[in-house]
Amino acid sequence: MSSMFMYVHENHGLSPTAGNAPQLAYTLSVLVLAVVLSASRRVALGEMRDEEGNEVDQAGFYDVIFGRRDVRGQFNGEPLNPAVLGRILTAAHAAPSVGMSQPWDFVLVEALPTRQAFHEHVQSERAIFEASLDDEARKRFSGIKIEGILDASLGIVVTYDPERGSPHVLGRHAIADAGLYSVCLAIENLWLAATAEEVGVGWVSFYREEFLAELIGLPAGLRPVAWLCVGPVTHFERVPDLERFQWQARRPLEPHLFVDRFGTPLNDSELIALPTKLMASD
Amino acid sequence: MSSMFMYVHENHGLSPTAGNAPQLAYTLSVLVLAVVLSASRRVALGEMRDEEGNEVDQAGFYDVIFGRRDVRGQFNGEPLNPAVLGRILTAAHAAPSVGMSQPWDFVLVEALPTRQAFHEHVQSERAIFEASLDDEARKRFSGIKIEGILDASLGIVVTYDPERGSPHVLGRHAIADAGLYSVCLAIENLWLAATAEEVGVGWVSFYREEFLAELIGLPAGLRPVAWLCVGPVTHFERVPDLERFQWQARRPLEPHLFVDRFGTPLNDSELIALPTKLMASD
Repeated sequence: MSSMFMYVHENHGLSPTAGNAPQLAYTLSVLVLAVVLSASRRVALGEMRDEEGNEVDQAGFYDVIFGRRDVRGQFNGEPLNPAVLGRILTAAHAAPSVGMSQPWDFVLVEALPTRQAFHEHVQSERAIFEASLDDEARKRFSGIKIEGILDASLGIVVTYDPERGSPHVLGRHAIADAGLYSVCLAIENLWLAATAEEVGVGWVSFYREEFLAELIGLPAGLRPVAWLCVGPVTHFERVPDLERFQWQARRPLEPHLFVDRFGTPLNDSELIALPTKLMASD
Repeated sequence: MSSMFMYVHENHGLSPTAGNAPQLAYTLSVLVLAVVLSASRRVALGEMRDEEGNEVDQAGFYDVIFGRRDVRGQFNGEPLNPAVLGRILTAAHAAPSVGMSQPWDFVLVEALPTRQAFHEHVQSERAIFEASLDDEARKRFSGIKIEGILDASLGIVVTYDPERGSPHVLGRHAIADAGLYSVCLAIENLWLAATAEEVGVGWVSFYREEFLAELIGLPAGLRPVAWLCVGPVTHFERVPDLERFQWQARRPLEPHLFVDRFGTPLNDSELIALPTKLMASD
């Protein structure tokens, strides 16, 4: 993996206070740290240390995890390398699935008329969402790009087939949604593999399932789970768009960890040590 | 990442025929190849080649993707390194989420009485599934271990909170399930990070949601999405359990790829080149 990612994760996940207020300060501190780290890049190369200060050698893997972004505005429109696309989809197909049903299909949408029709539909759904917002939220929302359908090289629709492996899908009799969960695991594999290949992915969810099913000719019973915009990018942003545009800051992790029962906080549990410093660079 | 994984992926995803029949032959050929590759390990180290024979430098990342297993029988019961658990959960928390709602919580279940109660419940659900099978399937199912609840070091229940970030979760107004999808993306991040750390994960789905919600004291409205068995392992199997035990073979990828519309096969599309050989070893 070459040198595209720099991730700074300073005390994030340790602060006991969630909240949207200090977004700008957080963003600025991330940028300042990024500049500092850029200068000492050779030193920081691949560095990631745990609580005890031991170097962790999985830095490349965590680079992918923390470098991944939901890309909307950075697609450069260049063609996607066919071998890269092949590997990304092979990675998706290697995801875990309930009863090993692998209940997904992938429709690679290159045709411009299809993408234009979807783009228009998404715009109309954007307007519906916008109308539900109060003035302050609407103002913040207005600057946020929500999709790169026409800018990306390709659309990939990932679908769910509940009949795959039926009637006896091992592990699904008690939880009907388990098949749908499997499709999401495949999507995350695809997303991370793309990131490792320095290819951007953006998940569009401003659409009605019936519209998309009709648009790409899904057989009855199959359900679209995602439209992914996929393609080469100019760069990956360091801070997620919704945080950059002050819609929603990332939350700290610790308030969402419990021991044995929901609501019992970690306190000084010896079970887990959250990283005080989590930094990985190519 | 140290030397635990060897993945062999020979023409898998290229055969136009799906099917369960040649499972044993496939398994044997994988084993034979593994032995051969083991002998020439230094040569194969980190090797992965695309269609044109170019070496791909993301081998370590793909090692994680293809080395990941749904672990049931290989937990060694040793304690989980707290710093490793911290990194795994930090990776989960870095997953994409609709409107950056991060709608998950993690309940770390160590208490033996809780795990025993869950184990008994899962056994009863196993019996229900077993009773639905015909004789031939029941026989195959009888040899399959479906969970390592008591063998693993820890249970992690991952839950979904639909109220997180409400009322205006950006990207969820048209697709209610999008929040649930986000939780699955976090689970896959957790699973892959654990694999990178050589820690096993097994997803248990033989349970009723109400039972588990009650067992760990979930507030009304929150939904359990997974019970994950997590812990150090003796080894990772090379072939998924359900294939090893001839329940379900992995399917080839190509029949599940379409161009522009569902049902339009790839044929000789120049859009994508599937890997003819996909082999990665630490």
